[in-house]
Amino acid sequence: MPEKLVIFGDRRSGNCLKVLWTAQQLNIPYEWRDVDVLSGKTREDDFLKRNPAGQVPTVILEDGQTLAQSNAIILHLTERAGADLLPAEAFWRAKVYEWLFWEQYSHEPTIAVRRFQKAFLGMSDAEIDPKLMEKGLAALARMELALSSSPFLVGDSVTLADIALVAYTRLADEGGFDLAPFSAVTRWVERMERVLDL
Amino acid sequence: MPEKLVIFGDRRSGNCLKVLWTAQQLNIPYEWRDVDVLSGKTREDDFLKRNPAGQVPTVILEDGQTLAQSNAIILHLTERAGADLLPAEAFWRAKVYEWLFWEQYSHEPTIAVRRFQKAFLGMSDAEIDPKLMEKGLAALARMELALSSSPFLVGDSVTLADIALVAYTRLADEGGFDLAPFSAVTRWVERMERVLDL
Repeated sequence: MPEKLVIFGDRRSGNCLKVLWTAQQLNIPYEWRDVDVLSGKTREDDFLKRNPAGQVPTVILEDGQTLAQSNAIILHLTERAGADLLPAEAFWRAKVYEWLFWEQYSHEPTIAVRRFQKAFLGMSDAEIDPKLMEKGLAALARMELALSSSPFLVGDSVTLADIALVAYTRLADEGGFDLAPFSAVTRWVERMERVLDL
Repeated sequence: MPEKLVIFGDRRSGNCLKVLWTAQQLNIPYEWRDVDVLSGKTREDDFLKRNPAGQVPTVILEDGQTLAQSNAIILHLTERAGADLLPAEAFWRAKVYEWLFWEQYSHEPTIAVRRFQKAFLGMSDAEIDPKLMEKGLAALARMELALSSSPFLVGDSVTLADIALVAYTRLADEGGFDLAPFSAVTRWVERMERVLDL
């Protein structure tokens, strides 16, 4: 069994950074093991035994059990720490869940995927599905609406919703998204970079 | 304020059925309000005020507060009921979270989207992105692996993971997916249909 939390991840992946940042915010000792997402290593048998979905981040908990899916991992680490990155009040906790599922359904598959295609696969704008830009801008507009009336996504303090959403939002420019028109989002990214000491 | 839980949904949508089934399993009184997802009504101002993401399901809780995202809603309803659709033990609860996020990232965008394009938009196989079939089959293979050694996705009894995943899996044939080669999945669908009294 590992002596501390083991995080398999790639630091270029926002999904992996969420887990790293949450462990750091919660002062959880961890060992980081680099996995190059472009190498195909997550599709090899050794890795698939740990996570049949073949994705990073994947963690081995201190008791040897394995957990995958970035947002499931950060929820678990925060729950067991009893930390206020997850609100104690059930409704506000549910609003955090709402953002986490929205992130994986509407934000990551547009903003992170366009960044991956442009910055990592080297695809030109003409080769990239135009819907990714359209839907990514709609996702940013939704965040702008929420952050125009609140310093953080859920309530007045940092929650897992902010950690999960900032991971790819702060890299959106690498996907060709201009954050300048989204002034509340831009200020929130700066606020989160201070919180996370980036 | 509503006297009971109000569910805005479309019964053709697996995401909406998850919420209906969870309310029924938990014996929560509810009022169902039909919203035709094909009508564009979720993109109108009245609806967007409730859920800026413009999606169903959306619920109004008994205290008048609004919640969206199917998996966030079913987590909240189950948490507040203290029901065992969500395991008490933290690690197993996290495994439910893992399936719920995987469902929204890898299952719904392939299996449900192909069904929507084929059965609701009337697109031909040639018009549909071939990746949807490929990725949908990979998702079914992953479920087959899990269900070959366990009657339910997490442990020996029904959890939210089963409710969330069965919603679109049982409709996969409408998307052109043949479930016959996935015998453990097929038996689990039948098991879940008995549990949910479908």
